[in-house]
Amino acid sequence: MAAQTNGVDINPSFVLRAVKDVAFEDRPVPRLRGPKDVRVHIAQTGICGSDVHYWQRGRIGDFVLQSPIVLGHESSGTVVEVGSEVKNVKVGHRVAIEPGVPCRHCGYCRNGEYNLCPDTIFAATPPWDGTLAKYYIVASDFVYPIPDHMNMEEGALVEPVSVAVQIAKVADLKANQTVLVFGCGPIGVLCQAVAKAYGAKKVIGVDVVQSRLDFARSFGADGVFMSPKADPGADPVEHSEKVAALIKEQFDLGEGPEVVLECTGAEPCIQAGIFATKKGGTYVQAGMGKENVVFPITTACIRALNIKGSIRYTTGVYPAAVDLVASGKVDVKRLITNRYKFEEAEQAFELVKAGKEGVFKVVIEGVQGSI
Amino acid sequence: MAAQTNGVDINPSFVLRAVKDVAFEDRPVPRLRGPKDVRVHIAQTGICGSDVHYWQRGRIGDFVLQSPIVLGHESSGTVVEVGSEVKNVKVGHRVAIEPGVPCRHCGYCRNGEYNLCPDTIFAATPPWDGTLAKYYIVASDFVYPIPDHMNMEEGALVEPVSVAVQIAKVADLKANQTVLVFGCGPIGVLCQAVAKAYGAKKVIGVDVVQSRLDFARSFGADGVFMSPKADPGADPVEHSEKVAALIKEQFDLGEGPEVVLECTGAEPCIQAGIFATKKGGTYVQAGMGKENVVFPITTACIRALNIKGSIRYTTGVYPAAVDLVASGKVDVKRLITNRYKFEEAEQAFELVKAGKEGVFKVVIEGVQGSI
Amino acid sequence: MAAQTNGVDINPSFVLRAVKDVAFEDRPVPRLRGPKDVRVHIAQTGICGSDVHYWQRGRIGDFVLQSPIVLGHESSGTVVEVGSEVKNVKVGHRVAIEPGVPCRHCGYCRNGEYNLCPDTIFAATPPWDGTLAKYYIVASDFVYPIPDHMNMEEGALVEPVSVAVQIAKVADLKANQTVLVFGCGPIGVLCQAVAKAYGAKKVIGVDVVQSRLDFARSFGADGVFMSPKADPGADPVEHSEKVAALIKEQFDLGEGPEVVLECTGAEPCIQAGIFATKKGGTYVQAGMGKENVVFPITTACIRALNIKGSIRYTTGVYPAAVDLVASGKVDVKRLITNRYKFEEAEQAFELVKAGKEGVFKVVIEGVQGSI
Amino acid sequence: MAAQTNGVDINPSFVLRAVKDVAFEDRPVPRLRGPKDVRVHIAQTGICGSDVHYWQRGRIGDFVLQSPIVLGHESSGTVVEVGSEVKNVKVGHRVAIEPGVPCRHCGYCRNGEYNLCPDTIFAATPPWDGTLAKYYIVASDFVYPIPDHMNMEEGALVEPVSVAVQIAKVADLKANQTVLVFGCGPIGVLCQAVAKAYGAKKVIGVDVVQSRLDFARSFGADGVFMSPKADPGADPVEHSEKVAALIKEQFDLGEGPEVVLECTGAEPCIQAGIFATKKGGTYVQAGMGKENVVFPITTACIRALNIKGSIRYTTGVYPAAVDLVASGKVDVKRLITNRYKFEEAEQAFELVKAGKEGVFKVVIEGVQGSI
Repeated sequence: MAAQTNGVDINPSFVLRAVKDVAFEDRPVPRLRGPKDVRVHIAQTGICGSDVHYWQRGRIGDFVLQSPIVLGHESSGTVVEVGSEVKNVKVGHRVAIEPGVPCRHCGYCRNGEYNLCPDTIFAATPPWDGTLAKYYIVASDFVYPIPDHMNMEEGALVEPVSVAVQIAKVADLKANQTVLVFGCGPIGVLCQAVAKAYGAKKVIGVDVVQSRLDFARSFGADGVFMSPKADPGADPVEHSEKVAALIKEQFDLGEGPEVVLECTGAEPCIQAGIFATKKGGTYVQAGMGKENVVFPITTACIRALNIKGSIRYTTGVYPAAVDLVASGKVDVKRLITNRYKFEEAEQAFELVKAGKEGVFKVVIEGVQGSI
Repeated sequence: MAAQTNGVDINPSFVLRAVKDVAFEDRPVPRLRGPKDVRVHIAQTGICGSDVHYWQRGRIGDFVLQSPIVLGHESSGTVVEVGSEVKNVKVGHRVAIEPGVPCRHCGYCRNGEYNLCPDTIFAATPPWDGTLAKYYIVASDFVYPIPDHMNMEEGALVEPVSVAVQIAKVADLKANQTVLVFGCGPIGVLCQAVAKAYGAKKVIGVDVVQSRLDFARSFGADGVFMSPKADPGADPVEHSEKVAALIKEQFDLGEGPEVVLECTGAEPCIQAGIFATKKGGTYVQAGMGKENVVFPITTACIRALNIKGSIRYTTGVYPAAVDLVASGKVDVKRLITNRYKFEEAEQAFELVKAGKEGVFKVVIEGVQGSI
Repeated sequence: MAAQTNGVDINPSFVLRAVKDVAFEDRPVPRLRGPKDVRVHIAQTGICGSDVHYWQRGRIGDFVLQSPIVLGHESSGTVVEVGSEVKNVKVGHRVAIEPGVPCRHCGYCRNGEYNLCPDTIFAATPPWDGTLAKYYIVASDFVYPIPDHMNMEEGALVEPVSVAVQIAKVADLKANQTVLVFGCGPIGVLCQAVAKAYGAKKVIGVDVVQSRLDFARSFGADGVFMSPKADPGADPVEHSEKVAALIKEQFDLGEGPEVVLECTGAEPCIQAGIFATKKGGTYVQAGMGKENVVFPITTACIRALNIKGSIRYTTGVYPAAVDLVASGKVDVKRLITNRYKFEEAEQAFELVKAGKEGVFKVVIEGVQGSI
Repeated sequence: MAAQTNGVDINPSFVLRAVKDVAFEDRPVPRLRGPKDVRVHIAQTGICGSDVHYWQRGRIGDFVLQSPIVLGHESSGTVVEVGSEVKNVKVGHRVAIEPGVPCRHCGYCRNGEYNLCPDTIFAATPPWDGTLAKYYIVASDFVYPIPDHMNMEEGALVEPVSVAVQIAKVADLKANQTVLVFGCGPIGVLCQAVAKAYGAKKVIGVDVVQSRLDFARSFGADGVFMSPKADPGADPVEHSEKVAALIKEQFDLGEGPEVVLECTGAEPCIQAGIFATKKGGTYVQAGMGKENVVFPITTACIRALNIKGSIRYTTGVYPAAVDLVASGKVDVKRLITNRYKFEEAEQAFELVKAGKEGVFKVVIEGVQGSI
């Protein structure tokens, strides 16, 4: 084990140096920051839209790339070093990594809302380095052992499953509910699968790409809906209201789904989602697109809707996601369409950027070698 | 008591015959619809913006005036007849009237969400007659005795207090919270007073009329804010975001109020309200204006806001409102600026329509005479 | 259809005349009480412990047998008459019957807590007649159509499934939780199956009869625990605490299950359940035995437990139960061990009273004949 | 400031060496444990029953005195040293001290339930030293600045106010509720005052000592009840049920208080509290007495009660308590009946131990001297 700490070993990293400028760098092996930290040898990393966004645009909201960062935040790996006070994992444990470690001292952290902590160290969010490197340092309570029968790809994809689990938690999703999900991308179909695993009565997925609808239908949705384009010259909000009515009619949803999960961020979906939600029901905004949209606020008021935003993850979400994957309830392997070696990371990013139909979830293998 | 039931007595009523067409009519005394109904001799009726809206426009949302209706829904009165199964009140009891009686059979009713019941008989909402008449029939569990020291004007204004209590209930308003209220009209200032009565730490009222701010400051608000106009050519949403920042700064609200109550329905207030709300906090839409507004949905998502609509009232709200008035915690009499006789009802409506500064809450006395 | 209302038809009924005194009576066909009522031709009725209790003891709590009542409250049947205002069902519909119709006017009813309504007309609860007759009158919103592929036995057993669904609702049971259920009788195993259908991570059943544990293991429980007897002279509460520790150890429950559902009412189970519950977790009392028990109140306090009582059912529970059975998630048919004809009702009751191992759920067929 | 850190200064401490064995010791000035810690010069310390309990018995529950500890945990003081990363307070700030700093890493801490953290460093709970010393080290986010107009005695009594605020939080106490509080000692009367500050409709206090009832009546309670002794030979549980009925009758509580706060731990109060609670209402166990009591579990079940334990404090509680005192809503100074110098600490403890009528809250001044 000495190799990692005597300075001989290096930490190959895939670095975003500036907008549209990535490179491999040999960085020093990172050291534990405290006695409760662990060092993980990264095994697999999924690529997420936000990674590509930073690469191409250099910013998301208030997070602006101002100095180079290592990319990647959906990772699994093997624990190779533990601090003196670590109790929950040991060297050799295979783990999923929750990529944001909060400050633990602010009001949000103390109140169990650590997803809102402004001082979170979040992988691959400026100015913090991500996980696309040989090694990554993280607090021990933010790694979660995965059972032997789960492979490292599944371990990496615990991250998007966790996003879906958090959305379900924010929605207070309960068994026997009817759930409408806008979007059949990775987060959308995972929300659909999670809803089914939670005992939803009926889950409907909406998208505009047939192959995604087909996948959704085979993965978790009880029904899928191809969203029609508005007629030229039609009022966009009226079109959205019509779409909502069509969905309710086609799937016999009566007064509407009790829960709507919006995973696209697209303005027409947001509008249709609000119009579709049952009176007194819950709508969760999880997708992000335009900053501001035309929004049917009077409908939200009169129907006494509960509209909530979902961001990142909170306590218990990662363990739940590990369990959903480990138990086979969410067969996350089926999402993976493309696999790359570490040294092919840029090609992997190019593929995701291209956004071709058929490319769903792309994973990058970690740096091999003795640990 | 026989006079009321032998057909000799009549029921003078103030009727909206068509848009902008009101008249007094002598209608027959209404009969109890069932053994749990009561007949109330109306004593005082407040005028609400929705009454004026039906008069001038003939519709609100899906409710469209298609045949004449009696106006008025904020009323108090004296019970003059009770059905055979009525237990909670007796003839002679002075009561506040909750103006919407739901169907009691639908899923909303059975679930305690009777404010969402589509079959509610709501006073002065087409096609249902209102309370601006000598007599009004209502279910006995929708009248609430008021104590001797409350007068009938206070009894009538239990209605807007109930609107504010429902808004507070939807907001899950708790003691020690910081509360920002957009609007210092009747509902706005009542929300502010209710928040203080509930132990709010700091309550701030926002408006664009100085006299309303002054009243709010004297009534319940700890601080008031005159909302500035946007510079010509300024981006409206950016202006709203700036207003939110100004409010937070001026009143030392740190990351923002935990609760925002929007009682205007005005687009800039809605935007500023969303921008102002603390991460993880609650925003309640209670005001109604434009059907659709430009809305900062990404902010709502990233900040994990809880956005809720408030409409009408639910169980326990009317008793709470009676108690707030009876205990002196909400001095609702101070809202009344103008008083009219029953036969002056049209003048009263004209005054409210004119919307002059200084006219706050207008009440109309009921038809006098032996009962 | 005239046959039912012209007085020619009769309503054979199985009547509890006094404690331990049952008889068949030919009663008149009951009439609809209002325009929203329906008349159901009963098809199947399950026997519940409370039926036997009234038969043998004549009272449960405040409900005391003072005049004859028809027994039975777990029933399915076919709608044979509908009132003029009934919309949700038609003559010929096969339905499950929710056996308690509340007053719809009291504070509990208006608040969605109709299970607490003191004026509920509850089948076979004195002084109200039950469903062990040819016909039963009930409010139309308290019958729930069952799909064609569900048979009438399954329709009758929607009742105990609903009891379990209500318990899960009171527990606010969520996916990924660990759930410990005391009791592997009908309600216990149904709670276990419901918990699994809701996505529970691990469900453990406890009982003292091996055959019940075996059935539980095959029905919904991930693990089962044979509760050991206390050593002679052992302190009973200490024994219960030891049992709790044994369960946690054997099933690797760490600090304990997040949810405990107590379905026996037995004092040692209540104690062990409190001792087992995780800090901050939820314990639901659903079983009823002794009125008062020795209870570890300090443990409940220090561990910040949430202890809740579950009784009857509330809105949405029956539809959820129908869906759980219809979808195959809860295979309620497997509970039925014995079937009787209507005219053998007393033998059926004798069998349940005997309480022999192997007798689990007993159903009685309704009166045949043209309707 | 150098005096405190160069080893010349000492830290006089009031130490519990063993059961019934206290002494003053000159200990070294404690050092900050990390960059987010502060050192506080203690100004005032209230004595709590638990302090006396450790002194006389050496244990509470699982916490057993095995080596000497400094006593005291209800304290205010002045910040005299801050770690390099402290932002919320500065040297010279006057603060109330929250006496338990949790681990921040366990599942409870991450979930906002830090009151349940097993690794909390809680002042004067073995093996942790308390605040009855000149200096005390604590995490900076566990000290709360108090405004200039609050004195140090009030600052110390923020602790028992926080206990009451937590009880109210656990009860989910809302405005307009009826609240019954068992016990009119310090925690009981503070619960009553907090309930009033939160807008409770009616608050009733119960005790067996007339002078405590008189104080409660003048402090926050709308009504008080002298609990009668049971007749010799009466069944204790039946007596408790009778007491509950008497309270409901005397104070016109109808079906019972919506919230019951049990602050005595006495078996008859626990029983009467359960019997008194309205169906569907909430009972909070905050007092601690016998480990196990005879408990009306069937009543709890049938009435669908919510029974919850309250322990310590959670996020937002201390700030709320500071605000309640600072705003004058809870006049905590009125609780103080006896004041002692630091060197008289043992006499102060003897006084509390004696438990004489008229002794309510006792405070001990901190060590004077230049800081």
